[in-house]
Amino acid sequence: MRMLTLIALPGIPEVRPGDRLAALIVAALDRAAARLEPDDVLIVAQKIISKAEGRFARLSDVTPSARAREVGRAVGRDPRLVELVLRESRGVLRVKPGVLIAEHRLGFVMANAGVDQSNVPHAETAETALMLPEDPDASARRLQEELHEACGVEAGIVINDSFGRAWRNGVTGVAIGVAGVPALVDLRGSADREGRPLRVTQVAAADELAAAGSLLMGQADEGCPVVLARGFPYAGRESSTRELIRPETEDLFR
Amino acid sequence: MRMLTLIALPGIPEVRPGDRLAALIVAALDRAAARLEPDDVLIVAQKIISKAEGRFARLSDVTPSARAREVGRAVGRDPRLVELVLRESRGVLRVKPGVLIAEHRLGFVMANAGVDQSNVPHAETAETALMLPEDPDASARRLQEELHEACGVEAGIVINDSFGRAWRNGVTGVAIGVAGVPALVDLRGSADREGRPLRVTQVAAADELAAAGSLLMGQADEGCPVVLARGFPYAGRESSTRELIRPETEDLFR
Repeated sequence: MRMLTLIALPGIPEVRPGDRLAALIVAALDRAAARLEPDDVLIVAQKIISKAEGRFARLSDVTPSARAREVGRAVGRDPRLVELVLRESRGVLRVKPGVLIAEHRLGFVMANAGVDQSNVPHAETAETALMLPEDPDASARRLQEELHEACGVEAGIVINDSFGRAWRNGVTGVAIGVAGVPALVDLRGSADREGRPLRVTQVAAADELAAAGSLLMGQADEGCPVVLARGFPYAGRESSTRELIRPETEDLFR
Repeated sequence: MRMLTLIALPGIPEVRPGDRLAALIVAALDRAAARLEPDDVLIVAQKIISKAEGRFARLSDVTPSARAREVGRAVGRDPRLVELVLRESRGVLRVKPGVLIAEHRLGFVMANAGVDQSNVPHAETAETALMLPEDPDASARRLQEELHEACGVEAGIVINDSFGRAWRNGVTGVAIGVAGVPALVDLRGSADREGRPLRVTQVAAADELAAAGSLLMGQADEGCPVVLARGFPYAGRESSTRELIRPETEDLFR
């Protein structure tokens, strides 16, 4: 019987630059009386990866360009924050009051190219922003290796974030970094019940798992930034979130 | 400890028009040795809802309009199939060879307005297509009531389908009908850990649950079209998938 179990690991503290996430996760697994098993996947919130990696920027250190001041006026946002967004981006897709949708340098189309001021520690509020990890797939691999050293088990890792979508309200969890988990599962060559080739060929399995994890993470005070997933049907395959990025030439919605 | 468990119910047979899904689901719950509990949610594949409701169309009964013939040429698809898509749609967003993205009459932006020929029974292949349910929220409510009669428990229902997305490769599960489950969870008014109001306000919780269910449903031969979810943190609230549809005036990607 196919079964998938997700457990929000309790008691992960506020993460600070330089913290070893593997150690925090091992302690949280102990609190949950859970042992890591092969084919387990840990879904980890982007925010704690970015915080551990010290991906903070101080607005007082940022000098906005003319373009950032112009976009800042159109969006209604601090031009220094917009400058950070532009530096993290390959391009801007849409600008309107309150909305700035950019293509992050890694190819993710998302609000503010992932530059965020919520849940940034008090001491640094207002004047500090948090950016996506430099290379989330590499962050995922590193965490996988550190957990392997600590537990002797090579679990899968999905780093997730919440993205808005075209056409549909609300954000959903998506994968921005993976290790030991396929980003896409290719069903090409499979046939349907009637032997007819399936037209829908590729499932964004890492995004579906990221969304499932996001359901348990919550937000704000009661946030649980690490979720243990057991029973993910596609664990153990190597991949990259680059697979999830639709090439601009094949994209009908830019 | 927050925990979400998903179980793919075994042994659901090929569904035929007029079948009582509640009876099939009760039998599958028995096989899984599972009892329905309050706050459980059943994630049900759109296909079996449509089949039970007899939402088939015979291509031989369809006379394509001039517009359907024109779009059919551009897409490279049977103009009678395109005629069905147009009848199920409010409008067409994008057309290119192999791709027809339409706004379904219920507001969903999706490939072929949900008109599909995969997994349609052999006797009727090639000449038969399956459409979305007439009113998936109503289908979900009906199934909820029938299960309540059969089991004495008012479970939540999410009817899911697999949609492509802008910018990202691969399909993911999304909700097209709900009962007893909030489509959107509104976090407006919540604060982050630092007391700063959260900018991300609305989570498409039904879509996240639909994606989680989709992971266990698989495709083709080994398909399990019903998944039992236990521990969904937002069960019991009434809603409609209309909440998930971004109004055209607020949509930047048409």
